Amino acid sequence: MVYSIVTGKRLMETKIHSSLRTVEWKDNVVVMIDQTRLPNELVYVKYTDYKDVADAIRNLVVRGAPAIGVSGAFGLALAALQSKATDKESLLKDLEQAKKILFETRPTAINLAWGLEKIMNIARSGKDASEIRNNVIKEAKAMAEEDIEINMRMGKHGSQLFHDNDTIMTHCNAGALATVAYGTALGVIRATKESGKKIKVIATETRPVMQGSRLTAFELKYDGIDVSLIPDTAVGYSMANGLVSKVIVGADRILHTGHVYNKIGTYQVAMMAKQHNIPFYVAAPLSTFDMKSAPSDVVIEQRKASEVTRVAGKKTAPDDINVINPAFDMTPPELITGIITEVGVAKPPFEESIKKLFEPKL
Amino acid sequence: MVYSIVTGKRLMETKIHSSLRTVEWKDNVVVMIDQTRLPNELVYVKYTDYKDVADAIRNLVVRGAPAIGVSGAFGLALAALQSKATDKESLLKDLEQAKKILFETRPTAINLAWGLEKIMNIARSGKDASEIRNNVIKEAKAMAEEDIEINMRMGKHGSQLFHDNDTIMTHCNAGALATVAYGTALGVIRATKESGKKIKVIATETRPVMQGSRLTAFELKYDGIDVSLIPDTAVGYSMANGLVSKVIVGADRILHTGHVYNKIGTYQVAMMAKQHNIPFYVAAPLSTFDMKSAPSDVVIEQRKASEVTRVAGKKTAPDDINVINPAFDMTPPELITGIITEVGVAKPPFEESIKKLFEPKL
Repeated sequence: MVYSIVTGKRLMETKIHSSLRTVEWKDNVVVMIDQTRLPNELVYVKYTDYKDVADAIRNLVVRGAPAIGVSGAFGLALAALQSKATDKESLLKDLEQAKKILFETRPTAINLAWGLEKIMNIARSGKDASEIRNNVIKEAKAMAEEDIEINMRMGKHGSQLFHDNDTIMTHCNAGALATVAYGTALGVIRATKESGKKIKVIATETRPVMQGSRLTAFELKYDGIDVSLIPDTAVGYSMANGLVSKVIVGADRILHTGHVYNKIGTYQVAMMAKQHNIPFYVAAPLSTFDMKSAPSDVVIEQRKASEVTRVAGKKTAPDDINVINPAFDMTPPELITGIITEVGVAKPPFEESIKKLFEPKL
Repeated sequence: MVYSIVTGKRLMETKIHSSLRTVEWKDNVVVMIDQTRLPNELVYVKYTDYKDVADAIRNLVVRGAPAIGVSGAFGLALAALQSKATDKESLLKDLEQAKKILFETRPTAINLAWGLEKIMNIARSGKDASEIRNNVIKEAKAMAEEDIEINMRMGKHGSQLFHDNDTIMTHCNAGALATVAYGTALGVIRATKESGKKIKVIATETRPVMQGSRLTAFELKYDGIDVSLIPDTAVGYSMANGLVSKVIVGADRILHTGHVYNKIGTYQVAMMAKQHNIPFYVAAPLSTFDMKSAPSDVVIEQRKASEVTRVAGKKTAPDDINVINPAFDMTPPELITGIITEVGVAKPPFEESIKKLFEPKL
């Protein structure tokens, strides 16, 4: 039986929206789900030292861009409490040191830098050590709440695109476990279910890191959403056999032209959807948009070979084999039916509709 | 160091075409590569009891349709030697008993039934026990040689379609390890290399059973062919980034209309190839063609969930998750550039060209 750290109640009975809270601030303690132990065990870990939070980010106890951003902010809040400084200047020095250690855990994650910088700005504007401590904790907590809020607004907009008896394919994990709670793509799926529509989900395994089988299948099953797992090779089969009515995925970066960078394999799922006339949606907050870069500017991270040659520590390929292991691929705008954000849904032509997402509503 | 069971010489030094011989008859002993131990160890096992050959087929020590057909025939040859019968009738009775045990190991494999029946027909036509024993062994050995012969003819036809500096993507294992030696799709790759052209191969991992990483990557690396492994999710990325010039796969069944049934994932590789204007070839012997069935007649085998939820015995998904795990998918003729056989290459329109493959050459 799993009990909530927060309420002490059984989670399966008390769930509202999603019972999984990836990262949380509770009585000056940071509480996280240890994602390295999923799907085998659901274990919550508690941290009171920011260096332990840094280790948690480094070791993928927490992963997913929005979740990492908030975890970094919580790390700084712990650092503010840990610091023995009594004046503003000394406290800011301690916070800068903590920021450096937290940032270096995953230096390429944009959201981490964003979360840390947001907290540092709040700290710098405080008038004394006591006010800074209060404001930093308040802001970090607000960032966590805002992440959930954004996901729920995204869910509300997105749910209107999904219908009763839809079977929705998703790739990778853009779920509660990638955010503070609720999720982006899986948030839309949760909102669709909450709106009273009966839906099913097909989750791709998502090799090599298996976020689909380890995380998406876990969190949807945990929340009582009907989910079936497929190997990544069965995307075409599932679509050709009429098993899929819509697709939704998250995004790691979206360009102003509508080019979407997401987990490796997204592009071929989108292409197969197009060929079978299946709508393909992307769900991501406005913070995912990169309004400056062109596709030629985006460098795709290549990851280590052992992700492909080993599974859960077991060797599955010959020693010293060449491996091509890109973390992401690019889905061109012509394969995308709509991009769901917290302020509405952008539809083609994306260059215009994405620009409108950022215009202030009158 | 690995030495040939047959010649005693180091295989890496003595290889002709392919150094891997999946199954072989040597001095009244059946010698097989134990494929369950690949890619970790290359181990040859020896059998003198047909019941051990039956176990080997059942436990996937040997797999791949052509390899299983010949293994069944070798099993019957062992049974003929083991039988104490001195008259034709008693020997045939013993062979029928052995045939039953061998057949039941993998009852859906068409090639196994075909191989066993071919040997039984030879046995029935023998005039006495001694002649039957001789003929059965002779025929089983001839079947093995014929399999290699067919693959090499296929390779010769196919190699003309591939060019210097091609990078060839392949899915699953249609290699030496699926046949007696040399392979079908990988036989074409071997023949292309032997013709003096410089080529590289990209092998997909081929989840869930990982024949690509375990077998294809192993056998190509073993034979000194430049091979890179990718997760199945990186097919689109590889093609979009210009890393693939041609695709070649094997087939489990080809209809007279040109519909190709092959390992799950083949369909989406073919579709992605089409979208990137990359030629997509299928290599298979005439024995793979099913000239009677329509696509609606073909039932696709669903395999057990644990192939998807566990890798090498390690759990990678939640308990009791729903799984969709089809063994094969169907690639429609419009995605196929050519079908390479031992008598030539069929090109679209396939209904006509496949018919011509079976017409006697004048």
